[in-house]
Amino acid sequence: MTSINFDLRKAGPSDAFDLEAPIRACGLFSEEEAQGFIAMLPDLLNDPEQHWLRLDGPGGIVGAAYLSRDGMSADVWNLWFIGVAPEYRGKGGGRSMLTAAEAKVRDTGGRLLLIETSSDIAMAHARGLDESAGYEPQGCIRDYYRSGEDKIIFAKPL
Amino acid sequence: MTSINFDLRKAGPSDAFDLEAPIRACGLFSEEEAQGFIAMLPDLLNDPEQHWLRLDGPGGIVGAAYLSRDGMSADVWNLWFIGVAPEYRGKGGGRSMLTAAEAKVRDTGGRLLLIETSSDIAMAHARGLDESAGYEPQGCIRDYYRSGEDKIIFAKPL
Repeated sequence: MTSINFDLRKAGPSDAFDLEAPIRACGLFSEEEAQGFIAMLPDLLNDPEQHWLRLDGPGGIVGAAYLSRDGMSADVWNLWFIGVAPEYRGKGGGRSMLTAAEAKVRDTGGRLLLIETSSDIAMAHARGLDESAGYEPQGCIRDYYRSGEDKIIFAKPL
Repeated sequence: MTSINFDLRKAGPSDAFDLEAPIRACGLFSEEEAQGFIAMLPDLLNDPEQHWLRLDGPGGIVGAAYLSRDGMSADVWNLWFIGVAPEYRGKGGGRSMLTAAEAKVRDTGGRLLLIETSSDIAMAHARGLDESAGYEPQGCIRDYYRSGEDKIIFAKPL
């Protein structure tokens, strides 16, 4: 594993433009989905209940993540998005974001963190982050995203 | 099964006060949870994306339900709440609301309806509505509500 000096910090409204790059590059979204997500960035970044992280490599932003409380629950959180540009994967940046997300949840008294992902990419997620970091698949909602593409729900008690 | 003439109709902002009764009576919430839910009623009832139903018996309101799109999905819906006062259960009112909810989802091009419930009450839900109506448990998020109380996710393709 090549080591890279990543810079990880909280993101806010002024990061909206920069965040478009990792959303497009992470490979999780179709162009239409990426556009929909990007259109929501100003609202999401201005909402104090939505917590954003940005990950920078030597040349600028390479990843991002955001999390907030899940539904109306007080102490269950959902990591709605975590993505790293392909050329920066496997170098510890995603794990740094995940660790920071878990710390945020613990700091607010949260005790459970969920990560929901498509069955098409669940194995990649699991290999890269979820299973080795202690996440377990606890649900599989069949055909959630489209026919043949399920939603897998990973959970980790914190 | 005693037959009752229920009246089922769409609910809106003017129903906020009436809806408090079935939210308190349905047995799904603690007093604190019921208060939190009731506090959100004005916002929920004014949001055109949240679809509410009220169920009336001979003497007034006895049940309610509401549903909306699940997350950012276009064609997956979530029946966030469905409740009937105990003395009016087993008389077809809950089933009527569920059928109306499914029709609403189909009418908007939805193809999957989720019902999430606590493991403490999952069997009651399942007996009363979910399993006989074609819902299947597809997830069990351990300790979601609190230690020992899981979230069960039922799903039905429409």
